[in-house]
Amino acid sequence: MDKIEHIGIAVKNLEASNELFAKIFGSPHYKVEEVASEGVRTSFFKSGPNKVELLEATNPSSPIAKFLEKKGEGIHHIAFAVEDLEAEMKRLEGEGLVILPGFPKKGADNKQVAFLHPKGTNGVLVELCQEINKG
Amino acid sequence: MDKIEHIGIAVKNLEASNELFAKIFGSPHYKVEEVASEGVRTSFFKSGPNKVELLEATNPSSPIAKFLEKKGEGIHHIAFAVEDLEAEMKRLEGEGLVILPGFPKKGADNKQVAFLHPKGTNGVLVELCQEINKG
Repeated sequence: MDKIEHIGIAVKNLEASNELFAKIFGSPHYKVEEVASEGVRTSFFKSGPNKVELLEATNPSSPIAKFLEKKGEGIHHIAFAVEDLEAEMKRLEGEGLVILPGFPKKGADNKQVAFLHPKGTNGVLVELCQEINKG
Repeated sequence: MDKIEHIGIAVKNLEASNELFAKIFGSPHYKVEEVASEGVRTSFFKSGPNKVELLEATNPSSPIAKFLEKKGEGIHHIAFAVEDLEAEMKRLEGEGLVILPGFPKKGADNKQVAFLHPKGTNGVLVELCQEINKG
């Protein structure tokens, strides 16, 4: 766990939230990226060594659509940068933590990602992400 | 907004969660601190330049007790480091954002803190914190 790579925030309207968070950060988002496999459109803001990712659902069966329906807008996940995703998954499973099925796979922002099951982590959806072609 | 200073996570039992997050981070918390004015006991973990703060309520009228009752355990707030809290509050108010009443005041970890009203920030409780005697 080298640092908080980013915080993911579920939003209903990416354009409106891009404007809002540009006011909060004092500078605009630096990219927008769609991850079709996850049914999300994302935008990214920088805060020093860290990022904030806004996530908008692109279809009603997307995990973000379900989160918005159940909990409303707000912080969706916390992502930690790791050097070696497979080794870190193995270490965490050895500690009794549960990786969500279907991972690792490619996520936004050129990352290979996996998630810990929030039932085992005090309700926090924890993402582990490794930069692709690095580490 | 120099970096994500920390992420605050509301938990029911600080001791149990300290054990859990020590497994996740691969290293234990490095301090525990009670903030009597906020009705919380907190512990801190390091992740490179960032921290994770666990928050347990010490009385039933504490904001964390109310959060746990309403939403259950999970991510409670995201805190950004700022160099000059008063100037940043002024800038954000100028952008139409609302600071929660009663702030700035002294928070945990030797910080002067203020919060943005989550109704104006897509449901995200945003903390701004300035190291005391710095900046």
